[in-house]
Amino acid sequence: MAQKPSIPKGTRDFGPLEMAKRNYIFDTIRSVYSLYGFRPIETPAMENLSTLMGKYGEEGDKLLFKILNSGEFRHGISADDYQEKSAAALAAAFCEKGMRYDLTVPFARFVVQHRDELQMPFKRYQIQPVWRADRPQKGRYREFYQCDADIVGSDSLLNEIELMQIVDEVFSRFGIRVCIKINNRKILTGIAEVIGAPEKIVDITVAIDKLDKIGLDKVNDELRADGLSEEAVAALQPVIALQGTNAEKLQVMRRVLATSETGLKGCDEVEQVLTALETAGMRNAIELDLTLARGLNYYTGCIFEVKALDVQIGSITGGGRYDNLTGIFGMPGLSGVGISFGADRIYDVLDQLNLYPEAAQSGVRLLFCNFGAAEAACCLRYARQTRAAGIATEVFPDSTKMKKQMAYANAHRIAFVALVGESEMAEGRLTLKNMATGEQQLLTIDEAIATVGQ
Amino acid sequence: MAQKPSIPKGTRDFGPLEMAKRNYIFDTIRSVYSLYGFRPIETPAMENLSTLMGKYGEEGDKLLFKILNSGEFRHGISADDYQEKSAAALAAAFCEKGMRYDLTVPFARFVVQHRDELQMPFKRYQIQPVWRADRPQKGRYREFYQCDADIVGSDSLLNEIELMQIVDEVFSRFGIRVCIKINNRKILTGIAEVIGAPEKIVDITVAIDKLDKIGLDKVNDELRADGLSEEAVAALQPVIALQGTNAEKLQVMRRVLATSETGLKGCDEVEQVLTALETAGMRNAIELDLTLARGLNYYTGCIFEVKALDVQIGSITGGGRYDNLTGIFGMPGLSGVGISFGADRIYDVLDQLNLYPEAAQSGVRLLFCNFGAAEAACCLRYARQTRAAGIATEVFPDSTKMKKQMAYANAHRIAFVALVGESEMAEGRLTLKNMATGEQQLLTIDEAIATVGQ
Repeated sequence: MAQKPSIPKGTRDFGPLEMAKRNYIFDTIRSVYSLYGFRPIETPAMENLSTLMGKYGEEGDKLLFKILNSGEFRHGISADDYQEKSAAALAAAFCEKGMRYDLTVPFARFVVQHRDELQMPFKRYQIQPVWRADRPQKGRYREFYQCDADIVGSDSLLNEIELMQIVDEVFSRFGIRVCIKINNRKILTGIAEVIGAPEKIVDITVAIDKLDKIGLDKVNDELRADGLSEEAVAALQPVIALQGTNAEKLQVMRRVLATSETGLKGCDEVEQVLTALETAGMRNAIELDLTLARGLNYYTGCIFEVKALDVQIGSITGGGRYDNLTGIFGMPGLSGVGISFGADRIYDVLDQLNLYPEAAQSGVRLLFCNFGAAEAACCLRYARQTRAAGIATEVFPDSTKMKKQMAYANAHRIAFVALVGESEMAEGRLTLKNMATGEQQLLTIDEAIATVGQ
Repeated sequence: MAQKPSIPKGTRDFGPLEMAKRNYIFDTIRSVYSLYGFRPIETPAMENLSTLMGKYGEEGDKLLFKILNSGEFRHGISADDYQEKSAAALAAAFCEKGMRYDLTVPFARFVVQHRDELQMPFKRYQIQPVWRADRPQKGRYREFYQCDADIVGSDSLLNEIELMQIVDEVFSRFGIRVCIKINNRKILTGIAEVIGAPEKIVDITVAIDKLDKIGLDKVNDELRADGLSEEAVAALQPVIALQGTNAEKLQVMRRVLATSETGLKGCDEVEQVLTALETAGMRNAIELDLTLARGLNYYTGCIFEVKALDVQIGSITGGGRYDNLTGIFGMPGLSGVGISFGADRIYDVLDQLNLYPEAAQSGVRLLFCNFGAAEAACCLRYARQTRAAGIATEVFPDSTKMKKQMAYANAHRIAFVALVGESEMAEGRLTLKNMATGEQQLLTIDEAIATVGQ
């Protein structure tokens, strides 16, 4: 036999069992998004490269998959150009289109392109694959799904509150215990203002984040190495040592940020969200975490991240508020806030904790074995009845050995097998075998439907 | 404002209303596939070009979207090569990967690649987009979904029978009246054998297909122009004039094909499928149609096609049996049979006949209007209760003008609006407005849930 065919590295096939688990994840997220009034949209896999380029930084541009123009793609590019231009410049000349890199930029493009048809605020969710020419490694793929929900056109913190409720609801449905971390870009800006080092904010959060690992002295050393003055390091001490309840932390931060209007506004925003959530029956803890600084250049208000409590894995959900997403497409002043569930990591967490419900792992309830043409014709009639009763049913198409047919039922975790041989046909009955218990019963089709449908 | 961003020609954005309709289509097809024991798989959007090239004919190769290799894609291709090679050869050098062109070739690749893990027969369905660099025109897109189901590893006609039942069930659920046309490649082969012109079979079916439009004399002229002898044209007369019930047609064909073993086998197969379906409670007619010759080079047994009765549109579903799909990947002798629903055309038919159920067009049931911070906090508590009761609910995030909030409810066809002002809060009640009737009631939240949840 020839060499087995394969798929591009970093991509995956999903067989029936993986699909069942993945659909359980997507369906759960989709249900909760819908329950909160988010509406689905889809955008094309390909966008114009002009839409994508420059939106993900220089590194991001390199990671875009580019689609070669059809036909004579060389048009207007001489052999000299070919030799002299950089690969990137040449790629830009040969390619007009690229593959979707995330769902955020296409969403911004969608909002601007369709702004005349959209009723604001616009709440959308989008569950689609994205593609990145990243070096593939464990847990990092070149094709993966994102599950985003965003609201644009509303400044209200009510949106942040509802997004946190969505996170809480989704992970409760999964049975995954999580800690939701919250921060606010304005608090970080305030800290930088107060210590007089606005350009150091990333270094500061990186250093503070290491407290648990390296201890206070080394954190302070690192801050000095980053070029912070002794005064600044001293001013940061209450922030680094920040502990206690969210209320206690906010009290400290209000003191530290007393001279920063922006910083205090950040504290107000976080407090308002936390207060509203106190009475919202949240089943997971929400915690103010100042080291949370994801996508700093991007977010302008609240920032969130979700960590699983019972599995060692990175952030499994994240999001935040951005104030100028559509500005890149010429439509400034539209505030937005969103979250994104990391489906691949959630898949791994559910697997490790063995949390998939049985129903997510089995599809077909009933298999009719095939003993020959006459028996199969009878089974087809029965199957019409079981399907009409909503029971997912198969009739084994070939009258092969029983052993093979039973192996098929076992491989697919089919709950019941029906045997219709000559004697059953004569009696107008079937033998129903419960595959879990091995129990067999001689039943009419109506009795079988009642048993299998339970 | 800058120029509006756009998307590549031939691609589409889908907004919430279109998504609701599309999901109704996909969910219906998916439910029926599952009911018949088909299991979902997904394959990557990108395949190795070696997997795709040469599988769709020369024209198909040109219509493949190719993905430029990352980084220095020129590697090993000199400026001389650049100038001298054909665009196609150069594209093959610059690109290792291409976009999925259909679901059939990736499925064949999947079966061969995973053959050691698969239990035969393997029944899979796959609903994913495909991409073709076709010239875009009305109803033809460069990105569109296919909805395929196939069984491989079983020769049994029971599969054909069940696929026809699936077709019948899906269109019954949609409320679209259809005619299912069936033919068999072996009958066509037999005709060619009998008239001694095996290479003319496509010309013959094309000519016969024109009978209604141009009449018998011109059909015969065309057959002569195609190079058929007078004898052959004479032998074809009963085939061209074929009329009556399926049984009557089969009777004629058995006479015509009396000397062709293959042709008679084709008649047997069609008869067996039709006989089984007679007692299967089919709600749509199934008709033997000898002019049906789709994908002749591809199919080897039964061929089917579905036409809508009440809308002028091409085939909306098709399929057939192929005997050597996986042979192209070095795994010969695996027979398969499949169908593919044309989601875009079904969308148009449902639209034209106004057959979308109301439920497919509205999502959110209840909107809480926002009169200010205190009222909104109260609404958030109520919304927790309505959502816990499974009612898709929104709280309008900003306390803007009522007119705007009502316009939002109307735009999204939200069934009920809840008004919680100062007086309602004081009373512990809410005013529930039925947006269809305009009726307003002062209710407790439990009463509102009972009303909205109906």
